[in-house]
Parts: sequence; C-alpha cells; structure tokens
Amino acid sequence: MTKQKSKAPPSAKPVPAGSSPPSAQLDQLRVRIDGIDQQLVELLAQRGRVVDQVTRVKQQHALPTFHPAREENLISVRRTQAVQAGLDPDYVEDLFRTMLRHSRVGQLDTLGRRGVRPGAKVLIVGGRGSMGRFFSRWFQQSDYEVHVLDVDDWPQVKPLTAGIDLCLLAVPIAVTPAIAGRIAPHLPRGCVLADITSLKREPLAAMLRAYDGPVVGLHPLFGPATTTMDKQIVVVSPGRQMDACQWLLDQLSVWGNILVDTPADEHDEIMGIVQALRHFATFAFGQFLHSRRVPISRTLELSSPIYRLELAMVGRLFAQDPLLYAEIVFATPERLTLLKDFIHSLNENLGMIEKGEKAEFVARFRKVADWFGPFSEQAMRESTFLVEKLVHRF
Amino acid sequence: MTKQKSKAPPSAKPVPAGSSPPSAQLDQLRVRIDGIDQQLVELLAQRGRVVDQVTRVKQQHALPTFHPAREENLISVRRTQAVQAGLDPDYVEDLFRTMLRHSRVGQLDTLGRRGVRPGAKVLIVGGRGSMGRFFSRWFQQSDYEVHVLDVDDWPQVKPLTAGIDLCLLAVPIAVTPAIAGRIAPHLPRGCVLADITSLKREPLAAMLRAYDGPVVGLHPLFGPATTTMDKQIVVVSPGRQMDACQWLLDQLSVWGNILVDTPADEHDEIMGIVQALRHFATFAFGQFLHSRRVPISRTLELSSPIYRLELAMVGRLFAQDPLLYAEIVFATPERLTLLKDFIHSLNENLGMIEKGEKAEFVARFRKVADWFGPFSEQAMRESTFLVEKLVHRF
Repeated sequence: MTKQKSKAPPSAKPVPAGSSPPSAQLDQLRVRIDGIDQQLVELLAQRGRVVDQVTRVKQQHALPTFHPAREENLISVRRTQAVQAGLDPDYVEDLFRTMLRHSRVGQLDTLGRRGVRPGAKVLIVGGRGSMGRFFSRWFQQSDYEVHVLDVDDWPQVKPLTAGIDLCLLAVPIAVTPAIAGRIAPHLPRGCVLADITSLKREPLAAMLRAYDGPVVGLHPLFGPATTTMDKQIVVVSPGRQMDACQWLLDQLSVWGNILVDTPADEHDEIMGIVQALRHFATFAFGQFLHSRRVPISRTLELSSPIYRLELAMVGRLFAQDPLLYAEIVFATPERLTLLKDFIHSLNENLGMIEKGEKAEFVARFRKVADWFGPFSEQAMRESTFLVEKLVHRF
Repeated sequence: MTKQKSKAPPSAKPVPAGSSPPSAQLDQLRVRIDGIDQQLVELLAQRGRVVDQVTRVKQQHALPTFHPAREENLISVRRTQAVQAGLDPDYVEDLFRTMLRHSRVGQLDTLGRRGVRPGAKVLIVGGRGSMGRFFSRWFQQSDYEVHVLDVDDWPQVKPLTAGIDLCLLAVPIAVTPAIAGRIAPHLPRGCVLADITSLKREPLAAMLRAYDGPVVGLHPLFGPATTTMDKQIVVVSPGRQMDACQWLLDQLSVWGNILVDTPADEHDEIMGIVQALRHFATFAFGQFLHSRRVPISRTLELSSPIYRLELAMVGRLFAQDPLLYAEIVFATPERLTLLKDFIHSLNENLGMIEKGEKAEFVARFRKVADWFGPFSEQAMRESTFLVEKLVHRF
C-alpha cells in the first residue's frame, strides 16, 4: 500500500503577474523568440558560406571530405558549452549532428564528383537498366568517358570495348554468367571486369572462367533511388589481380561508400538471410494483409509508432521493382531450402501456441534474448531514437 | 550507345590560392566555424530561457501547451528566410522541428504534471507491476492521491477503496475479468472503473457485468519504458456513463496522449493483426536466427541500413518482457486461427517459389502494391527519412 503526493515545482523566476494579460505577455515573449530564431537562421547561412569555402580549399588540394576527429571534437566542445549554458547536451548534439551531416552531404555533392582516374573509359553493360543508369551518372559526373552496351548494342561491341579500362556488368543475375562469357573475348588487356549483382559466387566464378585479366565482384547494398552514396555499403568479393582493380575501389570510396571485403561464399550465405529470407517474409506479410483486406489506414490510427515503422518496411518493399525481388528470392536452390526451414520453424512455433504452452514460449523467448545479448539493448535504443524522429516528423 | 562527359562546376568565388598552405587556410576557416557555433549555442540558451518564461505564463494561467498554428507559422517563416539566405529550407525546417519538439517536451514536463482533478483518489489494482508503477507515478506527479492494491493487499480492500474516484485495473489480461468481479462490490458510487489491458472485448464486458457505474476500457499503445506521453496513442473503448469518465480522458490528453475512440470488437480485431500477428512473426524470425546461429554482427556489417532497421525491430522485441508478448499472442482462439491462416498463406507462397513461378510472384507483388496504393510511396519516404537518421547517428 502506497500513498504519496508530489509537489508542483516552484517557479524560480516568476513573470510579474497582473502587469498585463497573459495573451499580451505571451505575444511579447513570442516576438523575442522570433528575433532569436531569425538570428539563428542568419548564423546558419553564415556557417554555410564558410563551409563552402572549406569545400573549395579541399577541392583545390584534393583533400578528403571527412575529418572524423574534427567532427567529434566539435561535438564535444558544443556539449560542454551546452552544459555550462544550462542546456541539455544531447539536444545540442542532435542539432549539431544534423548540421554536420548537412555540410558533409553538401561537400560530397561537390567533392564526390572527383574522378580517381578521370578520362578513363568505362563500359556499362546493361547501362539502360535502373542500376546501369545510376552508375553511368556517377561515372560521368566524375569525368569518366562512359559508354553503354545494352541488349541491342551487340553489333557495336568492337568499337564499344576499344580501349576501355572498366567493363561493369549491370545485368540481371540470371544472365550475368552468359554475358560475362560473351563480352570477355573483346576486353582489352588490363581492363577490369566487375559485376554488381546481389549474388557473388556464380557471377564471380563465371567472370574468372571467361576472362584472365583483373576481376572483382561488387554488391552495392543500395538501390537506384539512392541520392547519396555517403556511408552506403558495397560488398567487395575479390577475384583476380586486385592491384589492378584498386582504382575502381578507390573511386567507390571517394563517392562515400564503405567497402566491406567478403569472400563470395560467405557473402551468398549471409545474403540468403539478409535479403532472400527477409524479403520473402515481408512479401508474404504484405500479401496476407492484402488477402484479408486489412484496413491499413485504420490500423495506423490504432497503433504504436513501432507498428507504423514495421508497416512502413512492408509498404516500402511494394513501392519497388518486383523483378528485383523475384531475382533475389528465386536465386538459388539453397535459398528455397532456407525458406522451407523457416516455414517449418514457424509451424513448430504455431504448434506450441496451439497447445497453449506459454511457459515454453517464455523459455524460448529468453533463450533468444540471451543469444542476442547486448544487441537487443542496442536495438531498443536505436529503434526508440527513430520512433521519436518518426512521431515528431509525420 | 551513349557517350557523355560532364564538366566539373566552376568555383564561383575561389579562395586566393598560394597565399598560404591549405592546412593554414582550413585552420582559419575552422576557427570561423567554431565562432559561429559558439554563437549558435548562446542563442539556443537564450531561446531556452524565453521558452521557460512562456511555460511559466502558461502554467500560471492554465493555458494549453500546444499551439499548432503558431508552430506551423514559425516553421514557414523560417523556411522563407532560409530560401532568401540561400539555405535548403528542409534542412532549416529539420533543425527547427528538433528545437520545437525539445521545448514542447520541456513544457510538458512542467505543464503535463497539471492534474485535471487534483486531490482525487486513484486506486491502481496491480500497482506494483510495471504498467501499474508507470501510471502511479504519472497520477502522483499530477497531485492525485494514489493508492495501490496488489496481490497481497486484498485484506485491506475496504480502506483502500473508501472514497476513491477511479479504480484502474493494471493486471494481466487473463485475470482482468476475475479481478473486476472481485473489486466491483467495493467501489463507491460514481467511481470510474477502467482497465489498461491490450484486449478490450472481454475485459470491458466483465467490468460492465460486475459494476453498474461509469466504465471505460483503455489500451495505452506504449510500454512502461516510455519517458514521455507526448503524442502517444491511447485507445478508448466506451463502456457506460462516459460523461462521468471524461475527467480521466481529459487527464490523459493533458499528459499529451492522443485518444482514439474505438469499439471493443473493432479494437480486438485490428490488434490481432497489429500486435499478435506482428509479434508472432517477429518472435519466430528471431527464433529462427537463433536456431541457425546466424552471425548477427557479421550480417550487420554486410547490410543496408534498412536491414539494420528491420533487425533492430527483431532485437527490440527480445529486450522486453516475454510474459507481455505471451499474453498478447496466446490471448484468444481467434488469434490462433489468424496465425494458422498466416502460415497457410506462407506455405502457399513457398509452393509458388518451389515451382519457380517468377511471373506469378511478380503478378502477386503488383496486386499488393496496387492495393497498398499511396501508402507504399509514403512508407518509402518515411523509411528513407529514418534510414538517413540511422546512418548518420549510429
């Protein structure tokens, strides 16, 4: 049995009451806030102009965009100032991180165009597909000479491949091995052969079989709708003569990508989970909602931000290209086995619910929680942070 | 066949080159940025002090915290100024939304304590559970007289219920009907009886059967870890004498909650999807990752921010109380049927993949995409916004 009563906190410096009606007091205070806000925007504009100058100096001297130590130092100085000024340091950090991100993206827009090997010739095979067009644009912006070979251009294969430094295969997974075999005899000595499909074992093996020069398998973990490559991940599966491929990897880094070296086998196994299983589960969930005609907008009104976020993940999938997802889900027999195992495990869990085994549910739950370990806490923190952003933005 | 070459944009106002080495130039510019940043924090502190004064005026005159029109007007004035100053208005809006949210939460911390009916007596049944403790704290902060009746306190039921204005059931779903029956005979005339379980049909019916006074069913869509009620949703399923319950609903609004009126039947049906099905699917996915011993950290290194976000949703579940989820998943026979239907539909989709029917996959995908309609695009926009936040924060 508890009985408590808390007191309202005393107002430290009360506004002189009775001097004017509350609406007039509020109006006065709001005019002061507006004045401060105007000065804030003026300072942001000043800051933007100085950052532009920094960008120009970096551009003239080919200096890197990022300066992580500088950024962290800047944040910690502002946090200290915030505490001294009686402000919440997390709040001030949040604002400055937004400002830093903004200037970093702005710098990348300018500096990211820098070509590591400007003037080099790049042939994009499948260059009229969405990913092909995406990479054409980036190479062109970095002053490469970009040519495209699409399905109707094979009669021009000779002039198109003459003197090229990179042949990038941006064609569907299913035809990548065949296309590698068809283009390889035309590649000049020293030319890099690379692909960007979401599987690596088969395409890489096919490229290595067909061609004896430098080969590298790439898997960019982003779609053609991406506007910035800032911090986007590209998986790199080494093929042959990686020294000769280095300029291409450097170019990806300059564009802002993070490169993760991974052998093709390991890549394909992990992507089975990360892509095939996730996409299948999300597809099947959306399909189920549709088959039941679940009233989406009503469920959104009646749900926590977390459900809104989960449903956004489902809706997002269906805003994209079905062929891309079909390719990923139908890619290999191993993936089919994985999906079967998954559904088998779902059935097994359903059996437990059917039998009303709550204690077993809790036991399994705890086992998984232990296995996740600190990741769970981190996931909680990250998703809570995002949910706050979502609640206050939309 | 395409051949294009873009030009690097000319630098509008180049920094005089050669006058000093680039590092010295950068140092100078950084000193200027630091100076601007210091002024920014000073202005933020000034702004905070004025906002505190606004809060005090509102507190003295019991004025509402929010002023949506004022906020939107403020944002649009700053957007206009941003455009005139050559800044990206979305960027400036982003910063000001963060600032407004911060001051709103700060005001709620102070004003949200305001009791709609201070001094009224509240009995929380199950008040030592996590949600019970949560509501005890909020009622106490708003100057209510809070008593707790937990499992061992039934001998004191008479003094505990004497003169109470609200009896809030914060006990597990399974025992809510029984507890309602047990407490009802002790409730004084006019006392509001309410529950906060995540099902509404059964608990509400049980409360109405047991007690003939004011009754309302509540389902707060948030957990006990929530630090603010700002914009959190509470589903309200009307029971009886809603006029007499109004003060309780007003109190929830003052705390910042958004109330959504929903009949108990509709609530339970939608929650089957929103909670039971989602939680089961997420639980089963985590369980499958565990059974395969999938290397979580390696998958995170090799994945797009979207996967990171999806995995965070899974990890988040396992950071919480398994009993809470067991209650939701095992709640009703309808939910078991729903899960069975879901797994049946998964099996059906698996069959399609087994037969290699890619065209069918694409056709189903398009049907769902059409059905989702504009929600897909919105989901894409929201999740892209969040992914950017995630990428640049963690």
